[in-house]
Amino acid sequence: MSHPRTVAFDAARNTVVLIDQRRLPHRFTFLRAKNYRATAEAIVNMTVRGAGAIGATAAYGLAQGAREFKGSRLGEFRRHTDLVFKTLRAARPTAVDPVNAMNAVRAAMAASRTVAGRQQLALEAAEQFAEEDIAHCRAIGEVGAPLIGRGLRVLTHCNAGALAFVDIGSATAPLYAAHAAGVKFIVFCSETRPRGQGAALTAWELSRAGIEHVIIADGAAGHLMQRGEIGLVITGSDRVLGHTGEVANKIGTYTHAVLAARHGIPFYVAIPLSTLDWETKSGADIQIEERDAAEVLNANGPRGPVRTANPGSAARNPAFDVTPPELITGIITPKGIIKPRELWRRRKWFNSYNDSLCH
Amino acid sequence: MSHPRTVAFDAARNTVVLIDQRRLPHRFTFLRAKNYRATAEAIVNMTVRGAGAIGATAAYGLAQGAREFKGSRLGEFRRHTDLVFKTLRAARPTAVDPVNAMNAVRAAMAASRTVAGRQQLALEAAEQFAEEDIAHCRAIGEVGAPLIGRGLRVLTHCNAGALAFVDIGSATAPLYAAHAAGVKFIVFCSETRPRGQGAALTAWELSRAGIEHVIIADGAAGHLMQRGEIGLVITGSDRVLGHTGEVANKIGTYTHAVLAARHGIPFYVAIPLSTLDWETKSGADIQIEERDAAEVLNANGPRGPVRTANPGSAARNPAFDVTPPELITGIITPKGIIKPRELWRRRKWFNSYNDSLCH
Repeated sequence: MSHPRTVAFDAARNTVVLIDQRRLPHRFTFLRAKNYRATAEAIVNMTVRGAGAIGATAAYGLAQGAREFKGSRLGEFRRHTDLVFKTLRAARPTAVDPVNAMNAVRAAMAASRTVAGRQQLALEAAEQFAEEDIAHCRAIGEVGAPLIGRGLRVLTHCNAGALAFVDIGSATAPLYAAHAAGVKFIVFCSETRPRGQGAALTAWELSRAGIEHVIIADGAAGHLMQRGEIGLVITGSDRVLGHTGEVANKIGTYTHAVLAARHGIPFYVAIPLSTLDWETKSGADIQIEERDAAEVLNANGPRGPVRTANPGSAARNPAFDVTPPELITGIITPKGIIKPRELWRRRKWFNSYNDSLCH
Repeated sequence: MSHPRTVAFDAARNTVVLIDQRRLPHRFTFLRAKNYRATAEAIVNMTVRGAGAIGATAAYGLAQGAREFKGSRLGEFRRHTDLVFKTLRAARPTAVDPVNAMNAVRAAMAASRTVAGRQQLALEAAEQFAEEDIAHCRAIGEVGAPLIGRGLRVLTHCNAGALAFVDIGSATAPLYAAHAAGVKFIVFCSETRPRGQGAALTAWELSRAGIEHVIIADGAAGHLMQRGEIGLVITGSDRVLGHTGEVANKIGTYTHAVLAARHGIPFYVAIPLSTLDWETKSGADIQIEERDAAEVLNANGPRGPVRTANPGSAARNPAFDVTPPELITGIITPKGIIKPRELWRRRKWFNSYNDSLCH
């Protein structure tokens, strides 16, 4: 990609450096989060969003928090890093990438018995998570590119693009790979109200990459499918359950999946391995973040939010939904495409791959 | 309703008087269309929208155009009124109410053999169409109110409310009737991008009527249905095909219908008889208006449109979609609730009713 990394770490200043996605597409700026609380707040307020991007941000945030600790007492350090972990996890409860990323950092830290050693290991593990995210997304691109035939009309929802990851994205990775191979196709970006990530972020990314694309209102996808204008749907995910194959993703994903199934249109979900949740037993147990009503009552213009709804009216703002496995044609992973209900049976294969890819 | 009529006619000034719905919910103002071309433009630019409201507007517009004619030659008058008819019909091609309303005006005019006589009959027929719209909507309220039980959670899309008709609306008529009878319930208003009529107009109406309501993003309906939070869906329509029972309505309606069917949630469409199209044979023959991409790329704030999408990106903006009869539980008409596929068999019953209700 031609733009800098969505998430980076300035080790000398112990600062997480983020593309400020709240300002896009209007302004391209960076936010520097100087301590772990600022890093958690950057996830809460959507400065950074997207599965891999908040995974890397949480990993850096945990390392950052660990490095903020002054002293050498291991017990105090452990209590401090537990608090950092919980603060970062609570910033986006629906997503699993931050938990998996921070677990990897925590596991790495255990190899040292000194605070200083653990601080150093945390930093290395966070860097490694970010590198893995890049490698996984590139592998997703290679695996998924053959799905993107010449003239295909692809619908994607929200942004599971470069901005949602450290580098080239998950849902967009096959698109970037096919584009690099000279394939011509068209991407339909559903706007993704209330925050408009499809219109603001995916369209911005695809413009910069020179990929033909068209923005549509979220409610227009059904009509376009009915009239034969969509050939394939591809989205990212914030959490895929290994037990059931259920997929949590941005609000509106479930609707696209229901429509695609009705019209016999393939529906794919592209994820790095860090989006797999091997613990949660059922989609009903996934906590769906309800965000501020103001996001629904306003729209984000170049000078900030403007009121679009009737003043005084209430709004509900569930930010994610859960798509059941029977609506999903395949999960595009760095290692291959798999049916969602096959995940559990092949869990060892995924875990071994996780080791082999980047270590 | 406590507000003035959505559509009225100032006969002394030969002027159509419209609530300017483009300015709501931010400002409550009127637009005075001083000739039939201005009236047609008011339909095109969405000053007035909604099935019955544009039906009445077209009826008044045809009378207005007829009254603009100077002279007494019947052949010239007929050519002139044909042009007026076509101009008004083209202003919202997906909708049938304007055509039915103007056909009624044209039929009434035929009873006189003088230009002055026809001008007078046109005015009377237009007034009668508006009165019929009011009577039909009140009857829809009586027919549909029993569906609105205590504690029901009702989803409606776009605005088929008082603003979409001359008086109390179609989809909202059962809600207003149940509310007047003291029933407590909650209305979910889906925002209805790109123009946001759900958030801007339906929420505004329901606020004024004191009916509890909640605005949601269009993409959130599937999740709320999945979690058991929606008990019934009710929308209006711009054209219901008597031959097939297919329903054209605001973009996004089809999606809500697909979701409701998946979740076993009743899906009703409420219409006055003027929304019935007894000519068109298939939903595939309904012309779907594609509106300006700018509507999708912007959102409408208090000071006009603000850019929300990536600058330079293209957009598609189909404004309506078609819902097949198998997804519709019933059509709520002024005379009763009917299965969409029963319409054709009972077409004489509807036509006789049309005569008996208001003549």
